Formats: sequence, structure tokens, C-alpha cells
Amino acid sequence: MKKDVAYLKCIKCGERYSLDEVTYTCPKCGYDGVLWFEYQYENIRIENEESFLNKWAPVFPFETLDGLDFRNLFPSPMYKNDNLSRFLNIPELWFKDDTRNPSGSFKDRASLFVLKHALEKGYKKISLASTGNAASSMASIGAAFGIDTYIFVPHTIPKPKLAQLVVYGANIIMIEGKYDLAFDLSIDVSMKFGWYIRNTGFNPYTVEGKKTVSLEIFDQIELPDWVFVPTGDGCILGGVYKGFYDLHKLGLIEKMPHLVAVQAEGSASIVKAFEKRQLLPEKVNAKTIADSISVDYPRNGIMALEGLYKTDGLGIMVTDDEILRAQTILGKLGGIFAEPASSAAFAGLMKAKERGIVKEDERVVVLLTGNGLKDISSIKIDNIKVFKDLDEIEEYIKKEEDKDGL
Amino acid sequence: MKKDVAYLKCIKCGERYSLDEVTYTCPKCGYDGVLWFEYQYENIRIENEESFLNKWAPVFPFETLDGLDFRNLFPSPMYKNDNLSRFLNIPELWFKDDTRNPSGSFKDRASLFVLKHALEKGYKKISLASTGNAASSMASIGAAFGIDTYIFVPHTIPKPKLAQLVVYGANIIMIEGKYDLAFDLSIDVSMKFGWYIRNTGFNPYTVEGKKTVSLEIFDQIELPDWVFVPTGDGCILGGVYKGFYDLHKLGLIEKMPHLVAVQAEGSASIVKAFEKRQLLPEKVNAKTIADSISVDYPRNGIMALEGLYKTDGLGIMVTDDEILRAQTILGKLGGIFAEPASSAAFAGLMKAKERGIVKEDERVVVLLTGNGLKDISSIKIDNIKVFKDLDEIEEYIKKEEDKDGL
Repeated sequence: MKKDVAYLKCIKCGERYSLDEVTYTCPKCGYDGVLWFEYQYENIRIENEESFLNKWAPVFPFETLDGLDFRNLFPSPMYKNDNLSRFLNIPELWFKDDTRNPSGSFKDRASLFVLKHALEKGYKKISLASTGNAASSMASIGAAFGIDTYIFVPHTIPKPKLAQLVVYGANIIMIEGKYDLAFDLSIDVSMKFGWYIRNTGFNPYTVEGKKTVSLEIFDQIELPDWVFVPTGDGCILGGVYKGFYDLHKLGLIEKMPHLVAVQAEGSASIVKAFEKRQLLPEKVNAKTIADSISVDYPRNGIMALEGLYKTDGLGIMVTDDEILRAQTILGKLGGIFAEPASSAAFAGLMKAKERGIVKEDERVVVLLTGNGLKDISSIKIDNIKVFKDLDEIEEYIKKEEDKDGL
Repeated sequence: MKKDVAYLKCIKCGERYSLDEVTYTCPKCGYDGVLWFEYQYENIRIENEESFLNKWAPVFPFETLDGLDFRNLFPSPMYKNDNLSRFLNIPELWFKDDTRNPSGSFKDRASLFVLKHALEKGYKKISLASTGNAASSMASIGAAFGIDTYIFVPHTIPKPKLAQLVVYGANIIMIEGKYDLAFDLSIDVSMKFGWYIRNTGFNPYTVEGKKTVSLEIFDQIELPDWVFVPTGDGCILGGVYKGFYDLHKLGLIEKMPHLVAVQAEGSASIVKAFEKRQLLPEKVNAKTIADSISVDYPRNGIMALEGLYKTDGLGIMVTDDEILRAQTILGKLGGIFAEPASSAAFAGLMKAKERGIVKEDERVVVLLTGNGLKDISSIKIDNIKVFKDLDEIEEYIKKEEDKDGL
């Protein structure tokens, strides 16, 4: 057992387990009982190493770093953009760009941690259920390491994500139904066939992988005031929270940034629960264009809600139209192409700024969690004018310039 | 004028110009007369700076580095993969991964250099013709810096690349015809309206931007024996050649690696010319699924051919089927998703290894120039089985496992 892990704690009932006692969720609480790695923080000293992995190894749930130095995954780029800062009047507006991870999404962080654990345990097959990003991520990283993957996805998965699964050679189990059904079926089947299950939340290594983003944010800009997180299952939010929790416990930050769960109005389980100050997420009937955050019942909702409460955070709902508008603004002003789910985080920030919740002198991070190329179905690419010759083009441009002149 | 630039040299006739005398190609040779930046290498000393940009600034055609520190563009990831090394029996097989650049392709290198020059010169509008990757790249970087872009593309542009243009808010001039027509029209229209032209080859800053890849390769693994380059217009190959030329002139390498132009059989202008030892590329009627390298007449073919001759390089043709097979192998064994044009480079390596041209103890670099998500049309994603319940899934998996067992 990793020496600095104190115990695993059930996020629901608080029961403590040693690493050898449990594999997935709390035996008492079932799927809701997501496990949380608690370290012996008082024994850990973080040194200012040059390498991200060396520096933070003490709060990784592994004895070694073998395999984690994967294709420049850690850290992902972090940058500001003048146009977008001006647009929102937030000079310290930062984008954490996970659209450029190996498979194009934030989920690579979790997949790599799960894979490493699977290799340590000698598993040869990994399964998971996913709306698409975790799927393509696990399929990609599995292929790179020679591990077979069994990927349960809803039949509505966007085509580009499906194309990734095909190219990576995953075993695709497409389900006639939603993510939630794929989740349940994947666990039943995987248990039966003895596959290692990566499902988000369910597998505690997913949160540990995802928390790396907060460690990177700390390295890159120290402490932000706000972190805007696109939220479906609550597992990214849970991971972000866990990272800042570790930093706080290590005495590296005095307080945690306010975390913001941004959800699509049609899939707002966590935000609704937050508004009622509940500890458990609501059950909804999810419907949104932002497929990555379309979830009936969040699998890591309790942790996400705890993250919001403990950081004096916020829940924000945005409409599909607001998401698409945010996507366009990120593109036109920032040259950033984020999929609808990612764009939701920026839509949430636009709303929070408009309402005066976020102030212009605050330091804000927006997580870009998925590449826009992963879901282009909502972008209008038909009916683009086709030109035949020079005269036609010149006439068109003169007209456009006249319009601009008016 | 940048102090270390000695002169600009026409790649065709050899005529020398000062930076103030010319903007695009050689006035005597027209489009064929692509200009080449020659530096005062004897006055330059490269120091071992930690930052890529600081280190190589002396061989950049700019006085400052302002704007070049853009979203972790330099350097891109470089890695090996055990499965793929084993598959080809080449332990030192390296992948230079430009699929993870900001807009998902190698072209960001050129776009950023051109943009910087446009800003220095006070241009507010940039135009270009492109098969799609340079288009989405320029549109993205233009948007990030608040510069309007006018993008000429053939109507056959893959949908994901078109979606990028729409999101980045480019002015899209879609041409009923091929890339070659779009190229000619873009220059005529741009000259008329006074836009700064980024066209590949045509604008000498594109080669300077693209050469950065060779400087990175040198920093990352020193000197490879072979570099495999997917080739259409010849401009990436020209850039790779220019980078190693600079390194050689600076006395940092004793010889250049052998460069390999890999072209689709249906668009093999440069390879055909190379096989006949011509200095000028052939004119072909291009037809291939690899849209990024589908070109009738290469705009930087002379420089590419010089690169092949001067490095004792190689030209290799691959069929569309070989390209798709290479794409699948990169995906299944390596967890790498490269668009068909990029996969062509790997297909070329497979062929070169099979023929005994590349030896197993040699150090090989394959350039991955475009993200697979940018063109998914050739991936079979229809007819994937959809499951309704647990029994159906279990039955299917048992059958599959029985098959594997046989």
C-alpha cells in the first residue's frame, strides 16, 4: 500500500477503509458511496521540483511514477486572452486548456491514473460507461498501453467520439438508452467478466487523476478566486475540489477558491440540489445539446455538492442557447474551439459576471474540458455560399465591406 | 530589418533580396520563386536557454519574441510507443505530435509566424488558401489576436475543418474547385483588397514558422537518421529541411537527417519528380482521401525536392488503402488518432522498413501533422451493433471471447 495514503473515506457515510479492503465504492452505501483518498498530509513535504510529477508524487496514490509521464499530459496549457478579458472586463481571466490532451479531453487525467492502477493490479481488460469523452480517452490510453477496453456508450454518442473508439480499436457496447443505463449495465457486465471498471466516480482513482488539474492551476497561477467547471456527473468538480483540498491540507493555500458547477438547464441535478442546500443530487430527466454533461443522476454528485458547500461555491444553470452563444464567443474572440459542454463553463461565467457575483478584479479560471472537434453537430456548416469565379468573389466582398462601412 | 538575416534567396533562380525589397515570392520567378531566409550564421551563437523561444530567437526572422509565446505551441510533444516500436521492430521510433497544437495541426507554426509579421507590418486582415488545416489554423490564431481572416477553401473541405472556420468567425470563401484554384483566386482577390497573404510557400514566413519543428526535434532527441513527412504542397517538408539546414549552418549538427516525402499515390507530384531527379515538381491531377495532401501542383515543390536531394532523402508513394491501414495501426497499437494525411507518413515508414531502407537500429521520427478528429469521413462508424439489455450483451461477449479463444 502507498505509504502516504491514510485511508479511503466514503463520501456519503464517512466510513474509513484501508486500500486493501475496498476496490470501488463503499460497501454500505453502494454507488453513492464514492471513496475519497485521504493522505497523511502532516508527513508530506512538497518540494519545488522542476517536474510536475516529481513535485506532486507524494499525493498520488502510487508508489512509483512509472507510466505517468505520458505524452505531455501533465500539465495542460493555461493562458489568458486579451479579447476575452476585455469582453468580460476580467483582466485575470484564465483558460485551463484540456482540449489539447492526448485524446482531446480532460478525461485523460482519470484514464491514465486508472490505467496505472490496473497495470499494477495485473488487469488486462478495462471497461467503462461514458457519454463519450471518458470513452475515447480510456480507449486511447488503453491502446497505447496494450490493454483491451470495453466501452459502454449511449447510442446518441457524437460521431467524432465514436470514430475515436473505432480507430483506437475499443470493444464498443452501444446501448439503446441513456448514459445512466449504460453505467448500470457496464458494472453488471464487467463484474461478471472480471474486467477492471474505470467508471467515473465509481472508481476512486478517477478523482485522484482529475485532481491533478488543481495542482497544475496552483503551479501555473497560484490561487484563483473562482474556478468554473462544466458539470454533469460531478466527477470533474469532485476532482477539482479534491485537488484544492489536498493543497489546503498540505498548508500550501490558506483557503480554497470558490468552485462553480455550471450545468445545462436540461441536466441540472447538482445545481438544483445545491439551491435547496441538499447533500444528495436530484434525479432529473436530462436533455441538452451538451452531451458530455447530460446526466439523469450524477455519479459523483455528493462529492460535487460537498465541494460547492466547502468552498462557498456556486451552482449556475445555462440554457442550450447560452451554451452555443458562449461557444461562438470563445471561437470568434478567443480562437478557442470548445465542445458545447466545455462552453457551458464560459456561459456560466458570463452569467455570473453579469449578475455581479464575479468581480472584475478577481482571478478566474475556466476549465476547457473537451475539444470542439469532438462534437460538431450543433455548428451550422450547411448553406455556406460557394463561389465560381473571381467576379463573384469580388462582388461579394465589396458588398460585405460596404455593410461594415455602414 | 532583423539584424541576423543576411538576405532572402529565391529557391528557383538563387537571386538575393533584402527583406525590404520583397514581400512574397521572387519577382522574376513568380509563384515558383519561394523565398528562403538566409541568416548570418557565423555571427550567431545559440545558448542553452531553458526556454525554446529564447534559445532559438537568433534564427527567427523577428526582432522580438512578443506574441510567439502562444498557448504552449512550442514545443509540441515527442514520444515513443512500445507497441508501435515492436510492430515495426524499430526501438528508436519517435512520434512528433502536432495533432495537439492549438487548432489541431502542424500549420499553427506557420500561422503564428505569419500573424506576428502581419502585426509588425500593421496589417488588419490576413487571407489564405488552404485544403483545410492552414485555414482553421489561421482562422483560430487570427481570432485570438483580433485579426480578420479571409479563408479560401475548396468546397470539398472536411466538415470538421469547416466547423472550425465557422466557430472562429472566419470570412469563408468556399470555391467550387480544387485547392489549386482556391490558391490562385486567393492571391488575385487579396492583392486587390490589400490583405496580407499567408499562403503556404508563397509567404516566406510560413517556412520559417514550420522550421521550428526541426529545432524542437533537435532539442528533444538530437539527431534522427530519418524524418518522415506527409507531403502535399511540399511546404512542411521545406520547413523541416530549413530547420535542419539552420542547425547544420550553425555547426550544431554534422549532417542532416534523411528526409522522406510521403505522398498519396493519387497526389504524388514531388515523389514522381524526385524519382526522375527533376528540380521542378510534376503537375498531376490529384485524387486521394488524404485531403490535406491533395495537391495538383505543389507550391513549395522546388524547396521540398532540394530538401530530398540535399539530405540524401527519399520519396515514397502510398495508396489510400495503405494510408487507412496505417491510421488503424496508429490507433489500435498506439492510441494515436491522426488524420489520413498524417497517417500517410506512417504508411511510408511501414513501406520503407519493409523494403529494408530503414534499418532497425536507426532513429526515426514520424511527423503527426493533423488530428484525426479533423477528418473522420473515412472511418466506418455506421452499422455498429446497438444492445438493448444485459442478456444480449453477455451473449455477444461470450461469443467474442470464444472466438478469441480459438
